[in-house]
Amino acid sequence: MYKINEDYLKLPGSYLFSTIGKKTNAYKEKHPEKDLVRMGIGDVTQPLAPVIIEALHKAVDEMASPETFHGYAPDLGYEFLRNAIVKNDYQARGCDIAADEIFVSDGAKCDCGNIQEIFSKDNRIAVCDPVYPVYVDTNVMAGRTGIYDTEKETWSDVIYMPCVAENGFSPELPEKTPDLIYLCYPNNPIGNALTKDELQVWVDYANKVGAIIIYDAAYEAYISEENVPHSIYECEGARGCAIEIRSFSKNAGFTGVRLGFTVIPKDLESNGTKLHTLWARRHGTKYNGAPYIIQKAGEAVYSESGKEQLAKQVAYYMNNAAYVREELKNAGYEVFGGVNAPYIWMKTTNNMTSWEFFDYLLENANVIGTPGSGFGPSGEGYFRLTAFGTYENAVEAVKRIKAL
Amino acid sequence: MYKINEDYLKLPGSYLFSTIGKKTNAYKEKHPEKDLVRMGIGDVTQPLAPVIIEALHKAVDEMASPETFHGYAPDLGYEFLRNAIVKNDYQARGCDIAADEIFVSDGAKCDCGNIQEIFSKDNRIAVCDPVYPVYVDTNVMAGRTGIYDTEKETWSDVIYMPCVAENGFSPELPEKTPDLIYLCYPNNPIGNALTKDELQVWVDYANKVGAIIIYDAAYEAYISEENVPHSIYECEGARGCAIEIRSFSKNAGFTGVRLGFTVIPKDLESNGTKLHTLWARRHGTKYNGAPYIIQKAGEAVYSESGKEQLAKQVAYYMNNAAYVREELKNAGYEVFGGVNAPYIWMKTTNNMTSWEFFDYLLENANVIGTPGSGFGPSGEGYFRLTAFGTYENAVEAVKRIKAL
Repeated sequence: MYKINEDYLKLPGSYLFSTIGKKTNAYKEKHPEKDLVRMGIGDVTQPLAPVIIEALHKAVDEMASPETFHGYAPDLGYEFLRNAIVKNDYQARGCDIAADEIFVSDGAKCDCGNIQEIFSKDNRIAVCDPVYPVYVDTNVMAGRTGIYDTEKETWSDVIYMPCVAENGFSPELPEKTPDLIYLCYPNNPIGNALTKDELQVWVDYANKVGAIIIYDAAYEAYISEENVPHSIYECEGARGCAIEIRSFSKNAGFTGVRLGFTVIPKDLESNGTKLHTLWARRHGTKYNGAPYIIQKAGEAVYSESGKEQLAKQVAYYMNNAAYVREELKNAGYEVFGGVNAPYIWMKTTNNMTSWEFFDYLLENANVIGTPGSGFGPSGEGYFRLTAFGTYENAVEAVKRIKAL
Repeated sequence: MYKINEDYLKLPGSYLFSTIGKKTNAYKEKHPEKDLVRMGIGDVTQPLAPVIIEALHKAVDEMASPETFHGYAPDLGYEFLRNAIVKNDYQARGCDIAADEIFVSDGAKCDCGNIQEIFSKDNRIAVCDPVYPVYVDTNVMAGRTGIYDTEKETWSDVIYMPCVAENGFSPELPEKTPDLIYLCYPNNPIGNALTKDELQVWVDYANKVGAIIIYDAAYEAYISEENVPHSIYECEGARGCAIEIRSFSKNAGFTGVRLGFTVIPKDLESNGTKLHTLWARRHGTKYNGAPYIIQKAGEAVYSESGKEQLAKQVAYYMNNAAYVREELKNAGYEVFGGVNAPYIWMKTTNNMTSWEFFDYLLENANVIGTPGSGFGPSGEGYFRLTAFGTYENAVEAVKRIKAL
């Protein structure tokens, strides 16, 4: 008689955004006349840039002819894309990363979820609190997190690094020594960033204790300040301790297009086995490459007109972020983030819990955000608003919140 | 200090098709003037059908406008595609499968590799021998297969079901009781099929012993005989014991487009937990949906003109299969398969091993195939040829083999 993976049963409740979706749908059914402003899930709303549309059409036409048809993609991704990535994202910033250290995938979420697989089950993970749920949930599913404390909402074998007002919402080096450290900068959900000096402290620490940093840089395009690193490989020694995960979802509007990549420097090895070899084996055995036409769209992101058009798209969302941040601040709300990331992290009012505030905004302002506690216990009392909607929606949401 | 997943190190050598690629490239470097005929990897060569090209262009245009732009896809796939699948692949064949039992993915390989994750580590798997390598390899990576016997090329905790000349290349019910049974029909690599009565025996057996059948039906479109089931759900009781995995790679030429789906009937449950819930949780946590434009292409597969155009494409490849099979048979070779599947399974000559025959054909006929032993020990002495090349290549390959 077959048995199921019991570790899956340990997961408390459903995935955060599914719960938000269900609550929202229930409200809509009850109040079909209400016009909701959605600032919950971090999904883009602007159409694909013209240069990307053009690249897609061109690649589709290639698939229509036997001479230019493309079947299975190379395991690690097409060279045209990996070369463009290396040139623009790494070499242009002085980072020593080679094209064959890039693994193209169908998105950062999959990579963030799958990367833990190449590590032993008894590694101890450290995560920021609050944090993007995928890091912890996928480790729960792998049986790496111990026992869940329903009251504290924490796992016995996970090292939590609180990011709260008292430490300026940035994690401190943990007391217990972790094996795998998940860092996401620019940060989701808090919307803040680390300076290069601050990130260097983590790289030095990881090298000292023999930990791997899994660096999720999905929001890199939103960095506006000079001293904030776009890649962890801008820090000295990062090739010896860091895996970087990148996405095209937020810089190019690819949430529904699906493209991302992971960088595994060949320096990373344990007892003579390169992590690069393990991830290559996983890619080769459990994955079959991102679609050719999507990889061609990814290449267009790095063209001159691509860069120009996408900078405008990013500026559009960041203008929303600035608007929401400043307006709410002027209205007396405590708000953070939104300078180097498309997220606003706001304190709830009247000591409401995050979910109370969710319901309060849903019912009284018809605005949907994400409860901070959904990202971890230290997110309690906070609320996330995304800047990925339209400008009109941002204005409308602010108007309604200010009218409460 | 972090540690790696030691189970990965147990994998002997690299993925079969990577080895073939390396050997082929080495030969090409040494003999750049030689013109190789590739009948190794099962990759399609015909361009996408016009109706699919049209659907892709249309969907790309939708992504260019804010009113019709699509961000994140629904977790399980778009309803338009799941409804088309259910209607055409299941209801039309009298199979009782609902749209919310379909999980759209980026391909059957990923699903075949990931499905084992929702099962406990101590389940015992059974596989045909020879077999598509992904089933066993992904279970090795999960630590489910015990110790590797380098001489026998088998794992201590895997139940092998030999498919050899003596049993007509079809597996017999295993002596030891498995928990998970991988079946692939129409079969890769042997190219044969099970009749409905034969498959019913497996369904009855699985229901009796409490096993789950993971049914890989990637080659369903190649069935030409009446009594061969297109889905395992054509068998009575299959809703209680079977997961079916399907692909668009081979029926619609999507190897480089990436689309597939998995069916998990809600009847499947263990101690009150539905497998459907577990897989939904995996999809929601580790995956982010197939691209909108690709799902629209998938929908076009089921249109009237899609069916017509793709039937011609399948017929083209099956004509290759028939040609290779008949010509080699007439030339005195022992060949099997190629009637309900696009693969020809041939006996090597002069008692050569599969890899000896690979080298022999590569060097003397410049024809690349796949060594049967790469699919498992019982594949030793056999060789797989695919029909996915052009007709011209099939003719050329046969000519060269006959001239040996």
